Amino acid sequence: KVLWTVLVTMLGCSSSLPVGEDALCTAEELAKYRIIFTGKWSQTAFPKQYPLYRPPAQWSSLLGVTHSSDYCMWKKNEYASNGVRDFAEKGEAWALMKEIEEAGEKIQSVHGIFSAPAISSGTGQTSTELEAHPRHPLVSFVVRIVPSPDWFVGIDSLNLCEGDHWMDEVTVDLFPYDAGTDSGFTFSSPNFATIPQDTVTEITCSSPSHPANSFYYPKLKILPPIAQVTMVKIKKSQLGLSAPFINLPAKSNEIIDTVS
Amino acid sequence: KVLWTVLVTMLGCSSSLPVGEDALCTAEELAKYRIIFTGKWSQTAFPKQYPLYRPPAQWSSLLGVTHSSDYCMWKKNEYASNGVRDFAEKGEAWALMKEIEEAGEKIQSVHGIFSAPAISSGTGQTSTELEAHPRHPLVSFVVRIVPSPDWFVGIDSLNLCEGDHWMDEVTVDLFPYDAGTDSGFTFSSPNFATIPQDTVTEITCSSPSHPANSFYYPKLKILPPIAQVTMVKIKKSQLGLSAPFINLPAKSNEIIDTVS
Repeated sequence: KVLWTVLVTMLGCSSSLPVGEDALCTAEELAKYRIIFTGKWSQTAFPKQYPLYRPPAQWSSLLGVTHSSDYCMWKKNEYASNGVRDFAEKGEAWALMKEIEEAGEKIQSVHGIFSAPAISSGTGQTSTELEAHPRHPLVSFVVRIVPSPDWFVGIDSLNLCEGDHWMDEVTVDLFPYDAGTDSGFTFSSPNFATIPQDTVTEITCSSPSHPANSFYYPKLKILPPIAQVTMVKIKKSQLGLSAPFINLPAKSNEIIDTVS
Repeated sequence: KVLWTVLVTMLGCSSSLPVGEDALCTAEELAKYRIIFTGKWSQTAFPKQYPLYRPPAQWSSLLGVTHSSDYCMWKKNEYASNGVRDFAEKGEAWALMKEIEEAGEKIQSVHGIFSAPAISSGTGQTSTELEAHPRHPLVSFVVRIVPSPDWFVGIDSLNLCEGDHWMDEVTVDLFPYDAGTDSGFTFSSPNFATIPQDTVTEITCSSPSHPANSFYYPKLKILPPIAQVTMVKIKKSQLGLSAPFINLPAKSNEIIDTVS
């Protein structure tokens, strides 16, 4: 039991899809998407213990990957890999990038890695491009909630392919997760390693069920989304020299609820 | 004079190269590079006022662009654009991404944008890929020094092309710059806007010539490099599914001199 736990912890999550599930993508070509991440962590929506300074509420860099069902970056109720732990606790991307690289080399389960710059406030946007492949149509990413013990938002294995074509646009609301590696209860809790490591769990308005929890809002049924992500397929006619740019939203980054 | 200053400030820097200078690149194809940024901001090398907490010494996301000589991200002794100011002061990338996008759309002076994840300590590495084009062979990027008033390191218009071929590898030591938009003297100075805005200046061990300056080391002739960047051309034989990964250095990220 102990050995098994250690092994699972080292490997991180495993796919819950049946083997070959993503072979159902019969689209013929690569697909490029613009991914736009929008922080919705405002003091209005999340008044409790909202971090105003040192540091104020903000988002880390976004780190993501397109992959097959043979790779799993993170998964609810499974153990976070060491790379996800480093990223969720400190925003440190190196170990996670190495894990992705190894998955790409050893089992060719990865098509590409992508990252987008951090956002210096709880609300605001960041963006980059990603490329998906018919054999690697799944998207996963993580963004660390700053400050926090080991909390993050992200997507686990979203399939951009539908049969023989690529989705044109997909938008998903994001909610906070706990990586299960640091036992802090509040945004600015001091570091306190969770030993043995716990699994990745969703943080809701009632769980962890403790008044000290920063997201504990007993009067709410569900938390408002703390972030949102949109992936928009870049049309071929838009490809070319300025392809990386043409889908950047015109909306400027509104900085709200921060103390400079 | 005032109007001119405002105009220059809005536009940011302009190229000092003669028109058509980069037309000298006669390489025939696109070139892909792995870019590896290494932080060398240790307490040993930079003992003065080394930031140990809230936040400890670290590096923002890296934001970069490949472009022609018609675009300029930042330049020593010229005014920083609003985008560079936001990035240098807060690590906020959106305005700078929009400026790059506009340069790409309006005057086709930009080939591609790239970013790499932040580094959660003063020493450590981050990495991503970039693509250069014969008509857009120049690389520029910025990484904010955290904490700091408006200090950054970066590269301005490094030419990856040499005549008819692409350079195989290039490594450059990096030294701190002041964006000229915040008058703070030390890493953790409170915000204090510089009005009127000053130009981008290099920070040396003797300039600004004031003992309160965090980089003021009167006994040194020059500062040690605070960071280093290496760009390695990805060979065609390495292109393929795992191309984005194959050049990630094996060296793990050493976390030194930080307080967790």
